[in-house]
Amino acid sequence: MTQPIAIDAHFDSGNIELLRQSGDTLTLAIHQDQDSDFFQWFHFRATGIAGRTITLRITNLEASAYPGGWPHYRACVSTDRRLWTRADTTYSAAEDGGTLTITYKAESNIAWFAYFTPYSMERHHDLIGEMAAQPGFAYRCLGHSLDGQSIDCLEVGEGPLEVWLYARQHPGESMAEWWMEGALEALADPANPHARLLRQRCRFHIVPNANPDGSVRGHLRTNAVGVNLNREWHEPSPERSPEVLAIRNAMDDTGVDFAMDVHGDEAIAAVFMAGFDGIPSLRPGQQAGYDRYIELLDRRTPDFQTRLGYPKAPAGKANLTMSTNQLAERFGAVAMTLEMPFKEHDPLPDTLQGWSAERSMRLGEDCIAALAEWVHDVPASA
Amino acid sequence: MTQPIAIDAHFDSGNIELLRQSGDTLTLAIHQDQDSDFFQWFHFRATGIAGRTITLRITNLEASAYPGGWPHYRACVSTDRRLWTRADTTYSAAEDGGTLTITYKAESNIAWFAYFTPYSMERHHDLIGEMAAQPGFAYRCLGHSLDGQSIDCLEVGEGPLEVWLYARQHPGESMAEWWMEGALEALADPANPHARLLRQRCRFHIVPNANPDGSVRGHLRTNAVGVNLNREWHEPSPERSPEVLAIRNAMDDTGVDFAMDVHGDEAIAAVFMAGFDGIPSLRPGQQAGYDRYIELLDRRTPDFQTRLGYPKAPAGKANLTMSTNQLAERFGAVAMTLEMPFKEHDPLPDTLQGWSAERSMRLGEDCIAALAEWVHDVPASA
Amino acid sequence: MTQPIAIDAHFDSGNIELLRQSGDTLTLAIHQDQDSDFFQWFHFRATGIAGRTITLRITNLEASAYPGGWPHYRACVSTDRRLWTRADTTYSAAEDGGTLTITYKAESNIAWFAYFTPYSMERHHDLIGEMAAQPGFAYRCLGHSLDGQSIDCLEVGEGPLEVWLYARQHPGESMAEWWMEGALEALADPANPHARLLRQRCRFHIVPNANPDGSVRGHLRTNAVGVNLNREWHEPSPERSPEVLAIRNAMDDTGVDFAMDVHGDEAIAAVFMAGFDGIPSLRPGQQAGYDRYIELLDRRTPDFQTRLGYPKAPAGKANLTMSTNQLAERFGAVAMTLEMPFKEHDPLPDTLQGWSAERSMRLGEDCIAALAEWVHDVPASA
Amino acid sequence: MTQPIAIDAHFDSGNIELLRQSGDTLTLAIHQDQDSDFFQWFHFRATGIAGRTITLRITNLEASAYPGGWPHYRACVSTDRRLWTRADTTYSAAEDGGTLTITYKAESNIAWFAYFTPYSMERHHDLIGEMAAQPGFAYRCLGHSLDGQSIDCLEVGEGPLEVWLYARQHPGESMAEWWMEGALEALADPANPHARLLRQRCRFHIVPNANPDGSVRGHLRTNAVGVNLNREWHEPSPERSPEVLAIRNAMDDTGVDFAMDVHGDEAIAAVFMAGFDGIPSLRPGQQAGYDRYIELLDRRTPDFQTRLGYPKAPAGKANLTMSTNQLAERFGAVAMTLEMPFKEHDPLPDTLQGWSAERSMRLGEDCIAALAEWVHDVPASA
Repeated sequence: MTQPIAIDAHFDSGNIELLRQSGDTLTLAIHQDQDSDFFQWFHFRATGIAGRTITLRITNLEASAYPGGWPHYRACVSTDRRLWTRADTTYSAAEDGGTLTITYKAESNIAWFAYFTPYSMERHHDLIGEMAAQPGFAYRCLGHSLDGQSIDCLEVGEGPLEVWLYARQHPGESMAEWWMEGALEALADPANPHARLLRQRCRFHIVPNANPDGSVRGHLRTNAVGVNLNREWHEPSPERSPEVLAIRNAMDDTGVDFAMDVHGDEAIAAVFMAGFDGIPSLRPGQQAGYDRYIELLDRRTPDFQTRLGYPKAPAGKANLTMSTNQLAERFGAVAMTLEMPFKEHDPLPDTLQGWSAERSMRLGEDCIAALAEWVHDVPASA
Repeated sequence: MTQPIAIDAHFDSGNIELLRQSGDTLTLAIHQDQDSDFFQWFHFRATGIAGRTITLRITNLEASAYPGGWPHYRACVSTDRRLWTRADTTYSAAEDGGTLTITYKAESNIAWFAYFTPYSMERHHDLIGEMAAQPGFAYRCLGHSLDGQSIDCLEVGEGPLEVWLYARQHPGESMAEWWMEGALEALADPANPHARLLRQRCRFHIVPNANPDGSVRGHLRTNAVGVNLNREWHEPSPERSPEVLAIRNAMDDTGVDFAMDVHGDEAIAAVFMAGFDGIPSLRPGQQAGYDRYIELLDRRTPDFQTRLGYPKAPAGKANLTMSTNQLAERFGAVAMTLEMPFKEHDPLPDTLQGWSAERSMRLGEDCIAALAEWVHDVPASA
Repeated sequence: MTQPIAIDAHFDSGNIELLRQSGDTLTLAIHQDQDSDFFQWFHFRATGIAGRTITLRITNLEASAYPGGWPHYRACVSTDRRLWTRADTTYSAAEDGGTLTITYKAESNIAWFAYFTPYSMERHHDLIGEMAAQPGFAYRCLGHSLDGQSIDCLEVGEGPLEVWLYARQHPGESMAEWWMEGALEALADPANPHARLLRQRCRFHIVPNANPDGSVRGHLRTNAVGVNLNREWHEPSPERSPEVLAIRNAMDDTGVDFAMDVHGDEAIAAVFMAGFDGIPSLRPGQQAGYDRYIELLDRRTPDFQTRLGYPKAPAGKANLTMSTNQLAERFGAVAMTLEMPFKEHDPLPDTLQGWSAERSMRLGEDCIAALAEWVHDVPASA
Repeated sequence: MTQPIAIDAHFDSGNIELLRQSGDTLTLAIHQDQDSDFFQWFHFRATGIAGRTITLRITNLEASAYPGGWPHYRACVSTDRRLWTRADTTYSAAEDGGTLTITYKAESNIAWFAYFTPYSMERHHDLIGEMAAQPGFAYRCLGHSLDGQSIDCLEVGEGPLEVWLYARQHPGESMAEWWMEGALEALADPANPHARLLRQRCRFHIVPNANPDGSVRGHLRTNAVGVNLNREWHEPSPERSPEVLAIRNAMDDTGVDFAMDVHGDEAIAAVFMAGFDGIPSLRPGQQAGYDRYIELLDRRTPDFQTRLGYPKAPAGKANLTMSTNQLAERFGAVAMTLEMPFKEHDPLPDTLQGWSAERSMRLGEDCIAALAEWVHDVPASA
């Protein structure tokens, strides 16, 4: 009995709408984030496809948050939800308001497609449970989201340097939580010499997912009420951005010496970092501290590079609504925003998987190692 | 810095409300299923508890679906979401409208509590993805729930006997999906001789979760609009019970020779089976087929018993709204309802875990083996 | 650079000799057990074979221990030492004194070949270490082999029935130790209801490998001095058979109510059991106890059968040098010898793997379950 | 029933002799390598010890190969052969010709003790089998040992730089093969960016165990006839050192650009490197190449250091019988000898495990990463 093709997205971070079907060609659209114009993240399942070559046309993408994200992008696909590879994908800005066309030859009757390998809230809770049970780690609830989800924080280390790592303010950037899993595993590994050093010198506060509501809802950039959390750091509010408020309040309690905000970038096909250029009150050594970390990370892994990236803000023009600038200004912290690609890390491409969950995890581990080198330079009295 | 105690339930199958807190004593209540009076399933997280002995008081339970489920019940608890054990638990019908009191001495700062080891929709999708990729297995989407989730079916086997296994019509009976995972693993194991036999003689249609909406929502017994699916089999409708309609339609296409509906029972502290007593049109040999399966299963595993169970319906009084009776009547099938305990399997108790996810999985494997024995008796021409 | 083909057998249980090579055809012979005429077990590695179809001719097999073992036998082969499948194999009694011809098309440069999936002494020690650390298990050293290896015993259970399971008196019958791994895992599994029952009613003494010297040496049937241990049970001696002496002495200390000796059979393509027919002093109920176990096991798994097997000894003609007869006579035990095939279990064949390590493990688990049923019949005062 | 204490060493790399027992105190000695005076490696099992505190006295150690290895050394111990920790250990040079005293409080009835976490030949074969099956890897047999074991080599990479990594010329230095496992896993990991780079630029030839005979036999430093392989590289012979001859011949075929010989050091409590000081024909840039690698590795991991190490040979005084000097001289290679401690890596100590198998594996991965940095400096035309 031949089954009809079906498209489903009613699960954690699911986002798609089937506009119409014509034979094996399905025309689709992405929902906007709730109360927002942003859209770009997609995640859905196609079934009833065994033996067919299906054509998935995601339309209206010139209206998406980053139209520049679609050329040279290849969609992620998995049949078993473990191995995610890249599917044949093309983009035409002219067609149907901008159309991404995925062509997929199905051997079995089910396949999952996503903008990037998803990281579900269930996996998040598994990560929290597993890590909270590791020797030396403690769990801390910083507050709650608008939908009532907890803002989870893991803490480890006995040193005086206050290090904050937080990810997924933009929920569709799922690679950011894969990065977190890699970083946390590194810190918990008794055979990791960098972790051993860092846990002596630092106190880590790690927020693997700063935006659980947007994550479940399949949002790209915003929380349950359409707010971009990374534009709220100057003045977070219980009504619009309790997630940021909870984190920033906890930071005010501890102070911040080093901070990393982990993201994905839709357009640039490389891993890169952004700093806190143009903050009003740059402290002596603060920029040097940033530059030093970049130098160390660049040297440590070919999966990082410095050629491609964002333009720098002129002096005094830093956007203090963004966490990195706010933390640099507020605490004199060496703060930074890590960006990983949705597309591919062009300097060292992987035909099969593109930039992947696995490489994001490994980069997490390498960022921890670079931090150990960086801390080594800091006077122990810091 | 001491953290406050927090209670969270905003995740897959979460269900609790914090009424009030007094020191380390938290008074709680369970939400009713949407549009329904049923409630009994709970699932929540307590944080900020390290070093404390907390008292969790779940109140108003004489109004719950099965007040008889609470005496001698012990709550499930886990710190790492892998190993679930039983917590010290008492019940008082007189206190606050019926109060279950869980006493828990916390070593770490986070613990999950549930009526039974949860089985999330993410794990469900992992199961579907993994099984659909096994040799000989095929995925089939039978339809959709009211919330738009798919009704997933896995199929395997080349034989003429049509076997339907389906579970979790009542979403709070999570042991039913653990049973499914065990049964599916058995059927996929190339070293399992019963699976080898059964795949020659049968065609399996397996629905691991017939009520995904109730599952995500943390319901005990109903779907997204408060309908008890196991009272809809005589006349399922797209408005009230599309889940049942989808499954029954697929059964009408294939016919049904053998069917098992997998459940948990709140009150009876044992594993048992219920049949199709009292259906109007009993076929020759149909009751004998049922009795034979019971005999085989009873012999195969001490985790099954026949002393405790439901009373039988008198002749002609079978409730045909229930799936087992409906399938027995409609198809002449050997149909049955398996019940596993929330409390404990008293004939062979486990102090640490009580009746567990692991034992549910093993029972799934044993039910498959008993079916192989049963099929052996059926003429190959069946 | 093309590499030459090489044959190696200098590792645990390795046994082969390269007689000559002609292109991709290699003519081989199996070494006799030390100080003995027995030979049949082979285990070797072929390298330098990528892209070639090699022909492995094992000659002189009409002089092997069981010439009847070669027709319809297919050799085991693995490239990664995890998955062992069967290679194309034919036998000609007329050619070169009896020649087994294995034809193998190699994709990679290395492959391991064996008479059956090997079970190394390193894996044995891993099993001992892992099991000795399970709750309720204890390790006990019963004595030493002629080469100085320990005769390892694992003990578990608090009941009065003394159960002895021992394997691999004949070291080339490696399936016997895979069976042990399956049985031990079952007994250690907290979710296994049969194990739960048995540990209440029995005291288990389990010897996974009764002949470590023969195992390392790549022998088929004998110990370091060419002695067939299963012909020593009437009069084991420190000089010829200290392995048996150590086990029998320990049995004399505990007594034996139930015993199983686990073996492989070269010729018969099925799993079967042999009992203690013809012992002089048959006790009342002893034969019934054996028959009952056979009935239970036969019912439990299609991987056991009763049609094929050994002929029975006439009354009074039991060979008391063999362990099963000796234990039945000495202790009035229900004793038995389990035989698994090298060839295939014909009643339920597996084209890919034949009878396998995995099925041996599962049979171990099923034998434990059958024992739980059997014990259920025995009065608790036993 | 109380069991007697027994000491066993008849297994892969086992080495000990029980001289005498007095209550819970056992006096032991280590066997010399075959046909040699060297001894230091020990590996044995103690059984019958549950509930006792045993005292293991290993005597005559002032005659061992490195008496300086015993002060501040703590013995390795495991109950499950997975986790190896360090036992309470003291050394007295004055007592019984030099006595290492291990005090161990046993909870279970069995424990394994060793000079360092063993790496058996079975694990070696598993490593070979697993790695030979990885995409892009090939197996190559370089020759055979005196006992007839194969000298196994794994090859990977499509680049022009010829890289040779080889380990365990001294078989008792088991950390060297753990290092190899870590290095090989890194090279096979598709998410490892350094591996990706290296496989483009280099051709790897990896010999995880250059001395299998000494390994099985429980030797410290020599092969089956008492020859120290790392004093044979000027003139290896089929009679004394076929292992070296096989490797050096293969090197002559490929040439060598970079070589690392992996070792353990008995006396120095740190990880360090030794180069090729004093070779007659130093090429331009050769020493700089070595210095550069040291700088890169030192920067990469706190588990490496440069303060402690061997004294350097004066100009022209290099010992060309050793592989590193021979390869540097013969091929102009950047060659080096990596040393890991038996004792502990003092700059970053681990109370529980000391220097461990896990840290050796991680160092292997870091050495691969440092090599990727190093290769980056080498002109692509090399």
